[in-house]
Amino acid sequence: MNAEGSKPIRIGLLGRGTVGAAFADLLAERGEAVAAATGRQAEVSGVLTRTEGDFDSILAGSDLIVELMGGTEPAREYVRAALQAGKPVVTANKQLLAQHGDELFAVAREAGVQLRFEAAVAAVIPIVRTIQEGFGVTEISKVFGIVNGTTNFILSEMAASGASYDDVLARAQELGYAEADPTDDVNGADAAAKMAILARLAFHTPVTLSEVAYEGIEGIQPDDLAYAKELGLSLKLLGVAERRDGGISVRVFPCFLYPGHPLAPIQGPFNAVMVEAPAITEVTMSGPGAGGLQTASAVLGDVVSILAGDAPVHETRVELPIVKDVGSSFYLHLEVDDRPGVLARVAAVLGDQEISVKSVVQRGTGEEARLVMVIHECLESRFSAAVDALGRLDDLRSAPRSIRVIQEEY
Amino acid sequence: MNAEGSKPIRIGLLGRGTVGAAFADLLAERGEAVAAATGRQAEVSGVLTRTEGDFDSILAGSDLIVELMGGTEPAREYVRAALQAGKPVVTANKQLLAQHGDELFAVAREAGVQLRFEAAVAAVIPIVRTIQEGFGVTEISKVFGIVNGTTNFILSEMAASGASYDDVLARAQELGYAEADPTDDVNGADAAAKMAILARLAFHTPVTLSEVAYEGIEGIQPDDLAYAKELGLSLKLLGVAERRDGGISVRVFPCFLYPGHPLAPIQGPFNAVMVEAPAITEVTMSGPGAGGLQTASAVLGDVVSILAGDAPVHETRVELPIVKDVGSSFYLHLEVDDRPGVLARVAAVLGDQEISVKSVVQRGTGEEARLVMVIHECLESRFSAAVDALGRLDDLRSAPRSIRVIQEEY
Repeated sequence: MNAEGSKPIRIGLLGRGTVGAAFADLLAERGEAVAAATGRQAEVSGVLTRTEGDFDSILAGSDLIVELMGGTEPAREYVRAALQAGKPVVTANKQLLAQHGDELFAVAREAGVQLRFEAAVAAVIPIVRTIQEGFGVTEISKVFGIVNGTTNFILSEMAASGASYDDVLARAQELGYAEADPTDDVNGADAAAKMAILARLAFHTPVTLSEVAYEGIEGIQPDDLAYAKELGLSLKLLGVAERRDGGISVRVFPCFLYPGHPLAPIQGPFNAVMVEAPAITEVTMSGPGAGGLQTASAVLGDVVSILAGDAPVHETRVELPIVKDVGSSFYLHLEVDDRPGVLARVAAVLGDQEISVKSVVQRGTGEEARLVMVIHECLESRFSAAVDALGRLDDLRSAPRSIRVIQEEY
Repeated sequence: MNAEGSKPIRIGLLGRGTVGAAFADLLAERGEAVAAATGRQAEVSGVLTRTEGDFDSILAGSDLIVELMGGTEPAREYVRAALQAGKPVVTANKQLLAQHGDELFAVAREAGVQLRFEAAVAAVIPIVRTIQEGFGVTEISKVFGIVNGTTNFILSEMAASGASYDDVLARAQELGYAEADPTDDVNGADAAAKMAILARLAFHTPVTLSEVAYEGIEGIQPDDLAYAKELGLSLKLLGVAERRDGGISVRVFPCFLYPGHPLAPIQGPFNAVMVEAPAITEVTMSGPGAGGLQTASAVLGDVVSILAGDAPVHETRVELPIVKDVGSSFYLHLEVDDRPGVLARVAAVLGDQEISVKSVVQRGTGEEARLVMVIHECLESRFSAAVDALGRLDDLRSAPRSIRVIQEEY
């Protein structure tokens, strides 16, 4: 920080969309509180929008840069330039950090300035700060949760109303919980970017978006949710980053939870993240995962932390391999012909892959016959081989459908 | 901090009970991670127990004091001396801060050194850090939650098993969830101390234990929980600190929650705290509220924050009045004679205090007759007057029983 004492800290604001405008308002409204907490005044000294402002002169006239423009370019170039100029940066840009975090964190380390990003994951839920600071020396074993509010809203509504994915998506768009182009939310890419960021923090290892395996919720059918209700399960889009077999696994997938799981009651557009470690057992944090004001609050929290003192630039760094094949439990939904021996043939295929069945529901006759089962944990490669083999059985009327299940008891 | 560079930071440890011993082990085990995160080695340079060590020489040989001895004296004298000597202090001592926080925080401010206390409230749940740092400039409207694990375990077990308070308390003692003398847990005093600390943080105003009104769970009857189940409610011991009528209200009381409330699913010895503010909506954090290792983890997190950089000493300070009479909703349980006009006489008493009834269950006949109702929100002074008047009715076979109810919809 260049400015000291009574001179106000000058903030260069890149982007004035919903979050940018909310941040500028909030900074003005909470100005006295900021001064009381940090001993410094802060003001927006320049704003860059698509049509106004010049980055170089805004940078020259700022002590700190707040990047809320989104997208990877030119955000990457601007953040890099600011850090190289020795100016701390606060950003809410998850794609930027998930794709170019390695480069930008290296630049920040080299320049010895802070790059803060609480708002990039789960808005105002202080998960970044908690992992970096409170649990900074804890050996975290797993970070997982619901990090996309759009999909959680859609799944909650589908479960409550029995309506189809398309109908609920349209309703989410009307209510502002889904964007006009919801692709990155519903296909899991948005959650994957957030999990790449959390995995990097939790395990001190570089993880980029391209290393996160993700699936979305576009294929979820109303009857999956109806069967789930019968089995006592609720469906969430989960992001999971965990230590496995000496490496780490980072994935996003729709998943059933048993009642009593701390994430099972999270409804609507809320986010929730759990951190597990031997020394802490588990901590769960939940709250609104989006919203202009809520995101701006998280940005302001980071700005205040920078004004308040120079926290260390995160230094720990190891390189852990990404483990590709992990064990999971699954729900498996098969539409079958109702003829003798079907269940035996299905069971034989599962047995070939050493997969055992935990519970099964058989329903209907003739063209409507269905086998719905939950299987015990097995390697995903084996499950995938079993699904391929099931798909080749003459008994199946359509392709098998499967969804992961968290079995842990709570 | 006096030591720099390659010289290890010397930690003076006051107390070596469960948490103290766990802290010493954890510091040794995570030594490399501490060095990586802060650039400094840290070691325990002296330990004070009831039988060993001399405080003055431990202080002289330390750069930082960790106080885990508990109790208010001599902990108060030692913490004060350490701060005055310019040495930062980490403590898990809730009674010390709830009773003497004003004095100790003033000493810390004056000396310009940190006094950190994450472990004093809800162990490893990072609620202190979140309120102080992430939400440091947020205008918090309410902090509330389950901050005593012993009572939450007891209430969860009573609800699940239908067993009596005494039987469940004995079981909690066997399992180590309740102490041999559980008085401060079950009467609400422990939760009150934690709420005094949270209220001070959230509202930047001095609050001491003596200003917190508290009630415990000793009077809860199995049939309160049975009726609650019928009404769809779950029972928690809640601590609430909120802005009310230009001041603040800080209280602890048993309370019914409707299903869907984020605190309703918190079971067993867990804690959970919610923070509400217009700019953040609400954030909920839950996890184990006690445990030697979990508490030691929170202490270590504070030590790391001190090693990592000199965060500012909290400066904002206002003085808000404590509001005594607030509005609440209640469950009311009356054992009555089964004779004509009872309900009318009860209703008349409530009507005199302008109290309206939301739902009522009438059960049994003769000596077993009971009226169980939930009333809409009214000033507690009015409710109290109504209960006094009801107690004077000839129709009542025993004193009225009441428990607060949170009505908010989630």
